[in-house]
Amino acid sequence: MYRNEPYGSNAYYYAAPVRQSYPISVSPYAYTPAISSDMRFEHFYPPYAQPAWSHHANAPWVHGNLEDTREKQQPLTFVLIHGAWADASFWNGTAAELRRKGHTVYAPEYPGHGSDPNKNVTHAMLTKSIADFIVTNHLKNVVLVGHSFGGSLVQTVAQQIPDRIKRMVFFDAFVLKDGQSVADELPPSTLEAFNQLRKSSKDDTIMLPFPLFRETFVNLASLELAQQIHNAISPEPAGPLYEKLDLKKFYSLSTPRSYLFLTEDNALPQGSDLYGWFPHMANRLGLFRLIKGQGDHMTTAKTEPRMLAQKIYEAGRD
Amino acid sequence: MYRNEPYGSNAYYYAAPVRQSYPISVSPYAYTPAISSDMRFEHFYPPYAQPAWSHHANAPWVHGNLEDTREKQQPLTFVLIHGAWADASFWNGTAAELRRKGHTVYAPEYPGHGSDPNKNVTHAMLTKSIADFIVTNHLKNVVLVGHSFGGSLVQTVAQQIPDRIKRMVFFDAFVLKDGQSVADELPPSTLEAFNQLRKSSKDDTIMLPFPLFRETFVNLASLELAQQIHNAISPEPAGPLYEKLDLKKFYSLSTPRSYLFLTEDNALPQGSDLYGWFPHMANRLGLFRLIKGQGDHMTTAKTEPRMLAQKIYEAGRD
Amino acid sequence: MYRNEPYGSNAYYYAAPVRQSYPISVSPYAYTPAISSDMRFEHFYPPYAQPAWSHHANAPWVHGNLEDTREKQQPLTFVLIHGAWADASFWNGTAAELRRKGHTVYAPEYPGHGSDPNKNVTHAMLTKSIADFIVTNHLKNVVLVGHSFGGSLVQTVAQQIPDRIKRMVFFDAFVLKDGQSVADELPPSTLEAFNQLRKSSKDDTIMLPFPLFRETFVNLASLELAQQIHNAISPEPAGPLYEKLDLKKFYSLSTPRSYLFLTEDNALPQGSDLYGWFPHMANRLGLFRLIKGQGDHMTTAKTEPRMLAQKIYEAGRD
Repeated sequence: MYRNEPYGSNAYYYAAPVRQSYPISVSPYAYTPAISSDMRFEHFYPPYAQPAWSHHANAPWVHGNLEDTREKQQPLTFVLIHGAWADASFWNGTAAELRRKGHTVYAPEYPGHGSDPNKNVTHAMLTKSIADFIVTNHLKNVVLVGHSFGGSLVQTVAQQIPDRIKRMVFFDAFVLKDGQSVADELPPSTLEAFNQLRKSSKDDTIMLPFPLFRETFVNLASLELAQQIHNAISPEPAGPLYEKLDLKKFYSLSTPRSYLFLTEDNALPQGSDLYGWFPHMANRLGLFRLIKGQGDHMTTAKTEPRMLAQKIYEAGRD
Repeated sequence: MYRNEPYGSNAYYYAAPVRQSYPISVSPYAYTPAISSDMRFEHFYPPYAQPAWSHHANAPWVHGNLEDTREKQQPLTFVLIHGAWADASFWNGTAAELRRKGHTVYAPEYPGHGSDPNKNVTHAMLTKSIADFIVTNHLKNVVLVGHSFGGSLVQTVAQQIPDRIKRMVFFDAFVLKDGQSVADELPPSTLEAFNQLRKSSKDDTIMLPFPLFRETFVNLASLELAQQIHNAISPEPAGPLYEKLDLKKFYSLSTPRSYLFLTEDNALPQGSDLYGWFPHMANRLGLFRLIKGQGDHMTTAKTEPRMLAQKIYEAGRD
Repeated sequence: MYRNEPYGSNAYYYAAPVRQSYPISVSPYAYTPAISSDMRFEHFYPPYAQPAWSHHANAPWVHGNLEDTREKQQPLTFVLIHGAWADASFWNGTAAELRRKGHTVYAPEYPGHGSDPNKNVTHAMLTKSIADFIVTNHLKNVVLVGHSFGGSLVQTVAQQIPDRIKRMVFFDAFVLKDGQSVADELPPSTLEAFNQLRKSSKDDTIMLPFPLFRETFVNLASLELAQQIHNAISPEPAGPLYEKLDLKKFYSLSTPRSYLFLTEDNALPQGSDLYGWFPHMANRLGLFRLIKGQGDHMTTAKTEPRMLAQKIYEAGRD
């Protein structure tokens, strides 16, 4: 077996982060470790198989070049889910860097985005397209990575095909509570603006005005790069952003999960108890692996794909 | 026109971050985007002029040296406002680095500071001196940068001469609510200490005791550098720190704004909902551009002027 | 005198951070500066002696090599206190780096840990062993550094032998309130898990299950390194984690103190008002020096000892 499974099939180490009605999940202290009362404790100490890729450790070439040694990575299968106002090309640089490290990478573009002219989509359609993509391609042990709005799709895809998913990675991404919509996680004034932008559109889409986009999505970009990224985006189908999602099954999953936070991402406000990527939504994940990097919401994937790929690997590995 | 204006004269893209009595402005979720209900939405998509400096992009020398290319900057006019217990020399290194990049930089020293022996000043006098400086020198399209106490001066200067200001940059700086004083933003025990220090002075000034200064203003400095910086400071006129400021007009301005936060600045406590540079005061700015760097309150300008200049540029550019 | 004392013997500059019942100490704004109403203010301006090591500043060798110059350090005596699920070897790399810089470094291993087969220990026994170690070895002007659980030992050792301690450094470490136990600072679900693990043990110890350890203690490690670190740890005596500690004297000490926070340490949840290393527990220190670095709870000491040693020096110097 090439891909080692350190937690074996005893995936229930990962207890549901929040059970039942999880009344405390909006608080930062809704921190739930991997242990529940019905666990068999012997399973905490599985006889970890020697990772298949570690037998290279004594190979001569390992000692040839320090960077090669340091960067030898466990091969993983990544499925990268882009966010709103984006398409699969968001991942171009990052995917190339991950492939260069030996990983298998897919970046499916879901309906209503990229080259799809039909903007009349539902969250369920997006979910199905990604789940179908994974099943049709016979992908297993998938590290499912969602950026921004893509986080809500990681949640819904994972609860549809949990056996295919080895780990979920939320990268500056929404982690919704059961019954929430993405819109429910927007600060009131942002939500009001989105409501107006939606109403003023002819096809139930929302287009981000440049000043808002420039300051909060690409704050680290030069003006030229900001314009270039903004010029490339299309109006976002509004429907999926406003749909309340049934996420009960997600909150029963024991799939390992990580949160990758770029510290200058101000697309949602930082430091609020009520809103934000990290720690607000991240802490809903219960036991999760935290990885941080420097970057903003949409510039970094363009300008630092190598760094971002490394962080995604660190979030995704066993 | 050398200095391009990507938002044109339609400055009202930037809606007032908090309108009227802004009842939620003390909460971190007082996050207000650039959109108000009375906006003409066509203005969100102005025909951005090609930036004047981008025609160099294909010039031969651009490809000569990677760093040169990376560091080619849009020329800006900076006016740098120092804080309390400081004078214009605070900016020496940073100003030199900015000038090296082609920017025009002014660092006016305001009354009661530096070589001025008269400590009997008011906040209005400081404001007037800076506004007069800008007007007398015929400065336009100013990027007005305030450090620490200087943030309150950015607020008052901007509301006096808004047409001169292209962008406001708050660098670990006070962003006061209408009617507040700087003292109102000090934690109770710090305020009590300031009150005592003020009372014990003969000329209504406050001098920072070394241990407090060393631990919270220059925590990253060596002892020698900490002493050197401390030895250079003068007692601060207390009056302007305690004056309640009328900032109604500031909260009606649509001037773009940025917050630069150095992550080891502990001059005000971090992580509090009630006090602190970021996110506490920064989130009062409504739509703003967030830039972060590594540094503390007063060491970094001395030891890493090049990094700081780069961050100030990133905060100040269009 | 080789080791200079910039604050002289006037240690009462450092007022008790929280006095009496410190009712606000659980809030992030329990920020207490170094000044109390009964201070003699002339002591804020001691005639700082020229540091003994600064007379080298003009020595010829100083100019030989930039790095040497930059890294010339004030020689200090460090006593490094490891945390739970660790022994003295936790500090191996860091201690070596500190010694390489000219510091004197001790890393005493306390009872119930490392090679000690007896797990039946109390917090008082651990405290006594460290205090005895310092006294027996005639150590003075000690920079006492505690990691994680070791923070609670810094508190209890400092209140036993305050005259030996020049500065306390809390490195992602517990800072307990008077009357608290370490267990009191665990989020409810973690505490519940610890309770179960403790109950299921035969010798009143707690062993961290690998998945929990991997995700929250060594989140930045490769799987192999995570396993290696986990394999080396022993079950932790539970008793000292649950003991309520009398820390009244600690909160009357004027010993200077620092908090070193590694920003990806998620062993306790980040961003909570109720739990966490920084700012939650750090802000109990009143006036303290903040130092940050990149790292997690237990990987960084293994993988980046040089960086960690530098940060500990920056936290520990005068």
